[in-house]
Amino acid sequence: MSATRDNEQFRTVSYQQLADLLQQIFLAHGTSPQTARVLAENCASAQRDGSHSHGIFRIPGYLSSLASGWVDGQTVPVVEDVAGAFVRVDAANGFAQPALEAARSLLVEKVANAGIGILAIRNSHHFAALWPDVEPFAQQGFVALSVVNSMTCVVPHGAQQPLFGTNPIAFAAPRAGGEPVVFDLATSAIAHGDVQIAAREGRMLPAGMGVDRNGQPTEDPKAILDGGALLPFGGYKGSALSMMVELLAAGLTGGNFSFEFDWSKHPGAQTPWTGQLLIVIDPDRGGSGQQFAQRSEELVRQMQGAGQERIPGDRRYALRARSLAAGIDIEVSDWERLEALARS
Amino acid sequence: MSATRDNEQFRTVSYQQLADLLQQIFLAHGTSPQTARVLAENCASAQRDGSHSHGIFRIPGYLSSLASGWVDGQTVPVVEDVAGAFVRVDAANGFAQPALEAARSLLVEKVANAGIGILAIRNSHHFAALWPDVEPFAQQGFVALSVVNSMTCVVPHGAQQPLFGTNPIAFAAPRAGGEPVVFDLATSAIAHGDVQIAAREGRMLPAGMGVDRNGQPTEDPKAILDGGALLPFGGYKGSALSMMVELLAAGLTGGNFSFEFDWSKHPGAQTPWTGQLLIVIDPDRGGSGQQFAQRSEELVRQMQGAGQERIPGDRRYALRARSLAAGIDIEVSDWERLEALARS
Repeated sequence: MSATRDNEQFRTVSYQQLADLLQQIFLAHGTSPQTARVLAENCASAQRDGSHSHGIFRIPGYLSSLASGWVDGQTVPVVEDVAGAFVRVDAANGFAQPALEAARSLLVEKVANAGIGILAIRNSHHFAALWPDVEPFAQQGFVALSVVNSMTCVVPHGAQQPLFGTNPIAFAAPRAGGEPVVFDLATSAIAHGDVQIAAREGRMLPAGMGVDRNGQPTEDPKAILDGGALLPFGGYKGSALSMMVELLAAGLTGGNFSFEFDWSKHPGAQTPWTGQLLIVIDPDRGGSGQQFAQRSEELVRQMQGAGQERIPGDRRYALRARSLAAGIDIEVSDWERLEALARS
Repeated sequence: MSATRDNEQFRTVSYQQLADLLQQIFLAHGTSPQTARVLAENCASAQRDGSHSHGIFRIPGYLSSLASGWVDGQTVPVVEDVAGAFVRVDAANGFAQPALEAARSLLVEKVANAGIGILAIRNSHHFAALWPDVEPFAQQGFVALSVVNSMTCVVPHGAQQPLFGTNPIAFAAPRAGGEPVVFDLATSAIAHGDVQIAAREGRMLPAGMGVDRNGQPTEDPKAILDGGALLPFGGYKGSALSMMVELLAAGLTGGNFSFEFDWSKHPGAQTPWTGQLLIVIDPDRGGSGQQFAQRSEELVRQMQGAGQERIPGDRRYALRARSLAAGIDIEVSDWERLEALARS
């Protein structure tokens, strides 16, 4: 391991070192080699890019869910070729990322032929950031959109009880002058992982993020986690988008709605058992022909000209570049915990 | 015309009476019969359903744009069959709605065959509500999503100058127990039409909707219209979605971005000359099979159970039912103006 930036508090490791260690952890906790590889790369990518709410912070949750028997780390997803532009995957109670991986080549083939393709994943557990699912398509020159529902923790606008999940929407598009434009936004006012991190760090939240167990507004992340709930972002509009995510990611795929699964018989379960939808488009078929990436570059240039300093994805790419050049800093205590998990 | 509810202030007319009068107006102002029919039905539907910012309020803008030579009311859209699930239309500087109408049967055929279809409309003018473009697909049993960009009036989050349009997103899905779930939301904090109506009525707006010509927050709709600009809804998230709409509706279709067209040589021009994207999905190909409409009904039932009284689309359907039963109330002075326009 790189020792150049090690000190008493941080261990500096390469992406590959982190991914290898995470893979060992997943293998040691009962996943198949394929699932271990896919989840390890996903989680290491999030840590590398500064998406700390979906990096190594998530490992205990993954292992707890696996140990509870709630999610099947050994299962093999079943890919179904449904129509000229439609692919389905039964994730067979496994994780969503290996299911996407299993269907990727068929999906890309359909997009190349038909101009657009849809992938409906059901019976899947998604416990990661959503941007890693769309960015690779944009790296290939495609435009990609994905939605995934999660678990009841968001009160629909105008309602009194939580029903929706945090239900993120992720989008990626190629860009001629740089890395793809990518965003990944929870339709809740704040991501659940960020509430957990704030609670762990003892920080209060801004107003408007959530309610306590009595439905009263609160800025205390612990009150939100302790029987409270989140609010949608942007009032009725974010709530409508969250509803759309339920309809697409669960209703259409055949997965569970965020309120449907019952993990009470699996103490320790943490991974939402729902569904995920991806739509991938070949922009070369559009009216800009092969100029799409130049057109998106023009939009970015104009956004910068209007004064928007940070384009969606920029922060991640900057942190990624730093991680790839100088390594990923991980607290020594965290690293030691990971090493112990790889041995257990 | 029905006289039962006429009084000194209002004229009560049927949907068909209104649509017929609007069709005469469009014909009298130089559109083709096909364009007159499509625009009249669109505008009358908005009025019927209480979407007043896109009802007869828009007629002067349509006619002003037509008179300026900016939009071509006689043009014929050119449908291009691009790939197994991809249709393009060159609206040929005409309105977007006749372009969609011209491509509809090919698009539906592709969706039925491939499971999903995409329609990229470019070189088009969209001056109407967006929900009428998606609702009919859901009435046929499909799930539909559409985005359209418009004209520079929204400041991207973190920027100082306006760049994006109001850039709405509309979504429709069938539902077993009732009319389709449909929403149509501007990615700006408020729709441009609603700012115009507030200005006309002398009402102030809630905080957070827009800025004045100096970039300072204002609640005065006239200050927003007089060189000011709107803000995105929901901060950086709404801004990211607005960017996505630019990329899909313009970048991908080959239409103009909201900041690209120059109508300065066409005084009176009001219709944004951009593009529109539609994605239509056959939900029967998904993992719920033919149960999708039952699944969406279940979601609606649970939303109501959580305390959400109004499901997206409900208000429009209620007003539509009232209009179809008792007629549409139009101020006498408005009706007389419309009649005069039909003769001119």
